[in-house]
Amino acid sequence: MKVAVAELRALTSLALARLGYTSEDASLIREALLYAELRGNNQGLIKIGTNAIPCDPKEGPIRILRKSAVSAVLDGNRRNGMVVMDRATEMAIEKSRQRGIAIVATRHTGTSTSAIGYYAERIARAGHIGFVFSGTPKVVAMEGSSEPTIGTNPIAVGLPTGGEPVVLDMATSAMAYFGVIEAKALGRQLPPGKAIDADGKDTNDPAKAIAGALKSFAGYKGAALALVVEALTGPLAGGALVGDKDVKTNRGNLIIAVDPDLLVERGEYEARMAKLAKRVRAAKRRPGVSEILLPGERGGRRAKSAKASGFHDMDAELFAQFKRVAEGG
Amino acid sequence: MKVAVAELRALTSLALARLGYTSEDASLIREALLYAELRGNNQGLIKIGTNAIPCDPKEGPIRILRKSAVSAVLDGNRRNGMVVMDRATEMAIEKSRQRGIAIVATRHTGTSTSAIGYYAERIARAGHIGFVFSGTPKVVAMEGSSEPTIGTNPIAVGLPTGGEPVVLDMATSAMAYFGVIEAKALGRQLPPGKAIDADGKDTNDPAKAIAGALKSFAGYKGAALALVVEALTGPLAGGALVGDKDVKTNRGNLIIAVDPDLLVERGEYEARMAKLAKRVRAAKRRPGVSEILLPGERGGRRAKSAKASGFHDMDAELFAQFKRVAEGG
Repeated sequence: MKVAVAELRALTSLALARLGYTSEDASLIREALLYAELRGNNQGLIKIGTNAIPCDPKEGPIRILRKSAVSAVLDGNRRNGMVVMDRATEMAIEKSRQRGIAIVATRHTGTSTSAIGYYAERIARAGHIGFVFSGTPKVVAMEGSSEPTIGTNPIAVGLPTGGEPVVLDMATSAMAYFGVIEAKALGRQLPPGKAIDADGKDTNDPAKAIAGALKSFAGYKGAALALVVEALTGPLAGGALVGDKDVKTNRGNLIIAVDPDLLVERGEYEARMAKLAKRVRAAKRRPGVSEILLPGERGGRRAKSAKASGFHDMDAELFAQFKRVAEGG
Repeated sequence: MKVAVAELRALTSLALARLGYTSEDASLIREALLYAELRGNNQGLIKIGTNAIPCDPKEGPIRILRKSAVSAVLDGNRRNGMVVMDRATEMAIEKSRQRGIAIVATRHTGTSTSAIGYYAERIARAGHIGFVFSGTPKVVAMEGSSEPTIGTNPIAVGLPTGGEPVVLDMATSAMAYFGVIEAKALGRQLPPGKAIDADGKDTNDPAKAIAGALKSFAGYKGAALALVVEALTGPLAGGALVGDKDVKTNRGNLIIAVDPDLLVERGEYEARMAKLAKRVRAAKRRPGVSEILLPGERGGRRAKSAKASGFHDMDAELFAQFKRVAEGG
């Protein structure tokens, strides 16, 4: 169904105020959620509809635990992941501007970051290459295993191009965990080959997948990438590992930003990226393919069209659920 | 067949001398090739057997084009990729030791780097996290396209663990291009779903795949990762793009090294990585799975066993071809 973007925005603000967020934090969270929602990414308003981003009553101010000219480690102090990542993103851009490269880690965020492409895209819009890695609750079984030991652990990369940035944003799991939650909420089956039940057998039933585990994408390659993200956001950033006592209040995330001017003449990277994008788009297409899209382009167009028309296309049940929760039902 | 490691080593030295490499360069190249060969990675001695790493008569000294405390850009001046990457790896480790993070790009290398896990593993053995990206000749079609516009573009990540490092090393193509060369050399078919012919139709015939294109791994996710590697090694590192005039003599590569001590207390990262590895290994296994291996472990064990026994298990035809070329046949 078509829903007015203005209505989604107002309901989101209402929901976040009701959850106890300050208006400043609510504004950051709202923009992150709407970014995901309007692109059709399943890290959007379903997080309100399913009560997935409560405001932790024990939350405190973000603390800087360590820093250098090229790095920072932020203790989120149980603040919402989107609020902490907003700060981390700004710090990464600022440090990368100064030194050409920066690495910023966050730990102890009490909630999801929503779509991490949001932060990677902001870095790219600032003219830097952004890598974002996010550690999530442990719902994925490593290749060969039937027990979850790692997260859906998404990777995002934002590449400036001079024009619209290229934004990769992908879970290293076979599907996003919120896709499973969404399927369960809507009474739908999962696509085949994405999940296993508690006995390690393949299942299409979202409830059984929740009791079991998700698979990684692409077998051993995806599992290896998922383990790398686990290492970067757990051992390196200081986020919790499966079995750690603080696993519910300690998600870790990692951002790396690189200023292309560190390696090439000003403008050279963007000119060559534009050339690369043009050549990829102009390549001969397979039968039945009308257009070659770059990573993030489909979502970017969808969001642009929603902003231009003022209306977003949303599943009716998801909207109803979101509205009910937002209005305190 | 079982071949003595000492014989492979001697034949490799012979081959590299015959190709015109200096003994210093030959020694670096030999170690890189044997690393790949003994692990069972198809970036090993087949590169000699198929005459894939000629010494460019126009090669010159490696030049440092730009540098800062955290970065360097090396012009390989048509030197062998393994020689240039050896230098880049040492610089990345040294700069990461000084500042906690470093980025080193190479361009104008005239040959492949062989298995980039070799460089990532060296960074990990030095106690740093290593990311290595390599731009390769354009043999992969982007998702939806039937024309090659990007390379097999491998990604390697080396993670120190306190003990043996975890090493991910994967092509972003559905299979390694040297796997196609190998299949053609041995008269074998490709596995299904890996390649397309010049008309964009699926093919298992390595000759048709060479005339057509490889697919990326894992559909759009793999294609997006491949494009990211293309951006990092082409526009950012200064390597050639498809269609560029210098495409044969200008491969680009990128290394990022991170010292864990920049973000956590000394030893904390390694202790937590060891804990993560232990938990992943100890997880419940799917039926029929006898052991859960971490990325790079299978190859690492194979190399260790070859070194211990003095013998390497190698395809008889590949060995014969390698020996013939090495001996100048």
